Amino acid sequence: MTGAPSPQLPTFLRLIESDMAEVERRLRTIGEDDFPWLDELLRYILATPGKRARPAVTLLTGHLFSFNTDVHIPMAIAVELLHTASLVHDDSVDRAPLRRGTATIHSRYGDAVALLLGDYLFASSAEMVCATNNVRVISLFARTLRLLADGELREIQHAFDWTGGEEEYWARVERKTASLFTTAAVSGAVLGGASEAEIDAVTQYSMSLGTAFQVIDDILDLQGDAAEVGKPIGSDLRGGILTLPALLYLRQRPELRARGPFARLRDERAAMPDAEKEQCIEEALTLIRDSDAVESSYAVANTLAERAREALRSIKRPGNSALQSLTGIIDFVVERRA
Amino acid sequence: MTGAPSPQLPTFLRLIESDMAEVERRLRTIGEDDFPWLDELLRYILATPGKRARPAVTLLTGHLFSFNTDVHIPMAIAVELLHTASLVHDDSVDRAPLRRGTATIHSRYGDAVALLLGDYLFASSAEMVCATNNVRVISLFARTLRLLADGELREIQHAFDWTGGEEEYWARVERKTASLFTTAAVSGAVLGGASEAEIDAVTQYSMSLGTAFQVIDDILDLQGDAAEVGKPIGSDLRGGILTLPALLYLRQRPELRARGPFARLRDERAAMPDAEKEQCIEEALTLIRDSDAVESSYAVANTLAERAREALRSIKRPGNSALQSLTGIIDFVVERRA
Repeated sequence: MTGAPSPQLPTFLRLIESDMAEVERRLRTIGEDDFPWLDELLRYILATPGKRARPAVTLLTGHLFSFNTDVHIPMAIAVELLHTASLVHDDSVDRAPLRRGTATIHSRYGDAVALLLGDYLFASSAEMVCATNNVRVISLFARTLRLLADGELREIQHAFDWTGGEEEYWARVERKTASLFTTAAVSGAVLGGASEAEIDAVTQYSMSLGTAFQVIDDILDLQGDAAEVGKPIGSDLRGGILTLPALLYLRQRPELRARGPFARLRDERAAMPDAEKEQCIEEALTLIRDSDAVESSYAVANTLAERAREALRSIKRPGNSALQSLTGIIDFVVERRA
Repeated sequence: MTGAPSPQLPTFLRLIESDMAEVERRLRTIGEDDFPWLDELLRYILATPGKRARPAVTLLTGHLFSFNTDVHIPMAIAVELLHTASLVHDDSVDRAPLRRGTATIHSRYGDAVALLLGDYLFASSAEMVCATNNVRVISLFARTLRLLADGELREIQHAFDWTGGEEEYWARVERKTASLFTTAAVSGAVLGGASEAEIDAVTQYSMSLGTAFQVIDDILDLQGDAAEVGKPIGSDLRGGILTLPALLYLRQRPELRARGPFARLRDERAAMPDAEKEQCIEEALTLIRDSDAVESSYAVANTLAERAREALRSIKRPGNSALQSLTGIIDFVVERRA
């Protein structure tokens, strides 16, 4: 796998092309010299090219202020490792068979390996963030680690318990998705010597961006192309999670909380044969797809994207090309199909 | 569980009685204000009083040099949280039903909860260690997190594959047990302003202490009292792990690597009914117990203990009562029955 090509960067990321190549190169060196099996596991999970959106955000906020290879590269690697660690754990928790079109670690190597490999990745990311030598950034990182676990715990607590509604949904999204985008962006800004006002603007930008990212993820889980998305469609509902489109749909049709496919899935799933359960999920998905809930969800994502753009506009660094690239990331996030 | 009493401290720990009470008090405040279910999980795992040997070591090395409540208390809490997190994950990996006489998290709440609660505890410990504001200590901590996962991965890779022998055993013990004792001790010393020579001595002390701790653990798993130890006897062998007494025994009887209960357990376990497997384990345990391998293992533990005492003697802080307490911990570790 050592010869695997780096993922193709979109044109708006030209500015960080060589930085990203360095991140990819150093991601391939994570591991222990005397432990080839671990190496195999790490190459398996780190060589599957993802979108690398989070490290790109760190590098770009670095360039927006004052870029320093010695701290921004390790920080970008730490952010990607933390993201990968949480994917390995979450996929095991969610029993997801596929990720980016490839078998997940737990489905290929078992739950014990997924758990320990995730721990190893968390630890490697923590060591990487220590290389920044900046306690503010390290603390932010540790807090994010806690929020990610907190968000996932809330998700499994509320599986098939839909009383929390939209409030619980936003609390979860903030923790399990937006928090990592925020750390990615804010750490780049802090390490780049941004002012507190600029750090506030970057916080606004990344919270809105990360939240929009999750809303689009929800939409893709509902109506994406399974081959493009790289995992089965409808997995949120299958796992008992009501995402934004489902919540918006049920807001219009409150009676469906008591009867119909949603209610049956919640109340009778234990007694249902698998085929019947899948049919129930398909019915529920069709109801949402045929409503305007998807369109409304896109509208929410666009509002969030506009909020992110606004935050960037408040940063006065005229002629800075990183600012343009950070705007490009917003468009990329809301327009993506996978 | 809020009224649960603090564990009784042995007399040689009088010096840190009030510090330990503060550690216990603050361990009970870990959690999220708006998430009662998480609170229940955290109280369940943090209120079961353990030996608290590791935070005691941190506090005592602090007192040996220059104790500072603001950094040594958070560090002691971080060390205990890290230890607890790794127990939650390891018990899930090892399918252990009991710990300290109480149902383990995964057996009571399921694997998904054990995974995420462990992550939450890792994160909380990382946040706590950031409160020391000392990057050297934070880096040491992150490295330990990596070594713990590395050690466990080596253990599951070598389960029922006993070709690595004693060399692989010591590599594993260094990572999965000694590393955390070392971090506990060295962080206390660094935060207490010890000299580099003193830090070296503390490193020697804690590596020997931690290694002795694991050797005694191995012996207790072989011949302890299940009720006192708080978990079933023979669980290492059941999980395919050869511990020091088993390795020393097989060194004397190399032919048993090819036939007899050890070889059958390794080669035929998949085909054996559970009762037959248990009988095989009992036979193997009896063989070890009836040999001098247990006595030889105690001798190894005592040699390690003497090495730890020697390291303490090299530290010239005459009249310092922490030095006496740290010696007391050595005796406690090698004489313990649970």
